[in-house]
Amino acid sequence: MDRTATLSGKAVIGQSGGPTNVINQSLVGAVEEARRHGSITGFYGALHGVKGVLSEELIDLFAESSETLKRIAETPSAALGSVRKKPSPEECHEIFKVLQAHEVRFFFYIGGNDSAETTDIIFRLALEARYSIGVFHIPKTIDNDLLVTDHCPGYGSAARFVALAFMGDNLDNRALPGVKINVVMGRNAGFLTAASVLGRRREDDGPHLVYVPEAPFDKGKFLSAVEVVFKRHGRCMVAVSEGIADVAGNPIYQSGEEDSHGNVQLSGSGALGDFLADLLKRELKISRVRADTFGYMQRCFPTIVSEVDSREAREVGALAVRSAAREGLSSGSVAIRRAGEGKDYRSEYFVTPLETVAKHTRKLDARFIAPAGNNITEAFVQYALPLIGPLPNLGRFEGKRIPKKLKP
Amino acid sequence: MDRTATLSGKAVIGQSGGPTNVINQSLVGAVEEARRHGSITGFYGALHGVKGVLSEELIDLFAESSETLKRIAETPSAALGSVRKKPSPEECHEIFKVLQAHEVRFFFYIGGNDSAETTDIIFRLALEARYSIGVFHIPKTIDNDLLVTDHCPGYGSAARFVALAFMGDNLDNRALPGVKINVVMGRNAGFLTAASVLGRRREDDGPHLVYVPEAPFDKGKFLSAVEVVFKRHGRCMVAVSEGIADVAGNPIYQSGEEDSHGNVQLSGSGALGDFLADLLKRELKISRVRADTFGYMQRCFPTIVSEVDSREAREVGALAVRSAAREGLSSGSVAIRRAGEGKDYRSEYFVTPLETVAKHTRKLDARFIAPAGNNITEAFVQYALPLIGPLPNLGRFEGKRIPKKLKP
Repeated sequence: MDRTATLSGKAVIGQSGGPTNVINQSLVGAVEEARRHGSITGFYGALHGVKGVLSEELIDLFAESSETLKRIAETPSAALGSVRKKPSPEECHEIFKVLQAHEVRFFFYIGGNDSAETTDIIFRLALEARYSIGVFHIPKTIDNDLLVTDHCPGYGSAARFVALAFMGDNLDNRALPGVKINVVMGRNAGFLTAASVLGRRREDDGPHLVYVPEAPFDKGKFLSAVEVVFKRHGRCMVAVSEGIADVAGNPIYQSGEEDSHGNVQLSGSGALGDFLADLLKRELKISRVRADTFGYMQRCFPTIVSEVDSREAREVGALAVRSAAREGLSSGSVAIRRAGEGKDYRSEYFVTPLETVAKHTRKLDARFIAPAGNNITEAFVQYALPLIGPLPNLGRFEGKRIPKKLKP
Repeated sequence: MDRTATLSGKAVIGQSGGPTNVINQSLVGAVEEARRHGSITGFYGALHGVKGVLSEELIDLFAESSETLKRIAETPSAALGSVRKKPSPEECHEIFKVLQAHEVRFFFYIGGNDSAETTDIIFRLALEARYSIGVFHIPKTIDNDLLVTDHCPGYGSAARFVALAFMGDNLDNRALPGVKINVVMGRNAGFLTAASVLGRRREDDGPHLVYVPEAPFDKGKFLSAVEVVFKRHGRCMVAVSEGIADVAGNPIYQSGEEDSHGNVQLSGSGALGDFLADLLKRELKISRVRADTFGYMQRCFPTIVSEVDSREAREVGALAVRSAAREGLSSGSVAIRRAGEGKDYRSEYFVTPLETVAKHTRKLDARFIAPAGNNITEAFVQYALPLIGPLPNLGRFEGKRIPKKLKP
């Protein structure tokens, strides 16, 4: 974050990792902000992230109309294309050469912690070569697992999807009772699965049990817990992270003989849910047990967007450009600070050094997990509710009973 | 549909089968209409459909406030609870006895073709016993498989979910290319799976292949078709009904040695998608193949509601009551007639005899399926688009390329 002389030249931006519903807000926030800075003489979009830089697949973002940009901003997924690629040191050299060849003085990379690391490596190469360039990471991840920032752009909208899905499915399960398991994205962090509780209003609303990767999953305790809930409510809804693991850290969905899918290497994501449903049917003799795996729908569902998330994603894109162009900061990652709680929620933005965000990831705070390890606390609700936007106020009959005439 | 003398007495209503996003509109439409008819002296809601009638679990719907009813109408799933139960002839007798004991003169049952059959049996029992009662079936099914009616309340909203999910997932797949399979509800009818195409705008938009139960599924042809699309677009999106079957009518997901799940009886719904993904990886050597199964989310997702669907669901509920109370029709099922196409879409309602709706179901019309059996026609789009409401106008870069400098 050394202050350097103000740079002038072209900018390149790329999108990386799993797409989100608001990653294009960050892209458009950056482009629109760049238009206001004379020092940015061109703005190139790299197709499919660093892959597009390596192969010089670049498009001219300043050539796009404001109307196109407005529509892109409101469109899910990564409009430039994305990539799951952590470039090797040699490739980082190649990337740097391409940037030099096009006289690029600003590089922006939208993504998670791997993208922050890539950005950091490119910045260090530029330093070594004494090539002046501003290099910024713009945060994005539905997993909400970046360090330093209070939360990550992309999370609010995905969490909104999960909360709504559970609100609807809770009523579905109430209408046709049984055990229902929903598997939510999250290999290492349980933030998205925890969002399953945000729509709970009444004591008997599901999910009744929530399992996240941060708490070891024990099959015996799981069976007992489901049994208790089922006896009490005549039904049970379970939220499960795809990354739940046993106390030794072995993922539940590929634990040898316990894998209901035998030796077949499964690409799909139905395995964990089907395995748990099978376990419950077999051990608890409950007949109606169903499992759904939310899969990719969680991250790019049109119209399910949190307005707070959308606005913040836009702002982190704009701030990266402002920091690079106007303030002459040479590198960093944009982060969010919470400046008001609950109904007074508001956020502020700041720049943090790349190395504080690269490599490591954040997990669900211990205070967000109930002591029994199978539920989520009110502290999490207070943390996450402002990020997902208002939820619908669903109705329910309390129901004045008609006296029985035949079987009193 | 004999005209009888106008009846006076209490009404009972129940909800049956899989819940939908607008089944409570039909319920509230019926209650609000009933308030306008002095001949309906009480309105009871049966909890969990015929199960609640059998056990006299009834609540007083006239005791509910207009505000509660308004909120219930906008709430997904069956607010009275639902049931998957086709009562036996003995149970129909029991049901009839309960109705008599409570001096019920109007019986309304919201559901699919099985519910129409139940309703019909109850009406016939009343005829035999010379007990005057108005008995009406109110249509509901996301499968859209009822006869006589142009389409079914509940379908438009579920189809809207499917269309939106594919629009988002198409962009996700475009950003991170590969083969993506999405399994959609529909054991026997492909209407919901067909809705996957409603958001396609450009020639390369997915789904590129659509498989419905009405067209026999051939594994060899499937592999070739995916290969062709993948070569052309570098990616392939496939929509599949859960009920696809081979030419002999055997479901693909439980066809003996071809079942990737071995001998395990799976409750969950991940099996078909995982099996197809595994097949593609093995036979076509494509590395990134993913499968999602939409599951129960399709039918009760809060906020994903078609306004046309919502209005029509309300109207069929109201018309059933109006027909029973004011017009003195003694039995029937409410149906929808299309009275305008495209942007001039509008609907009319009429009553059809119960036996025309009971038992049999409708399949996807042959003109809606492309000759190759792996896609959906424009005729279907014209049919279904007015039912799901306006879709978002998503953006896309056409992209003015920057000339390459290093690797021209």
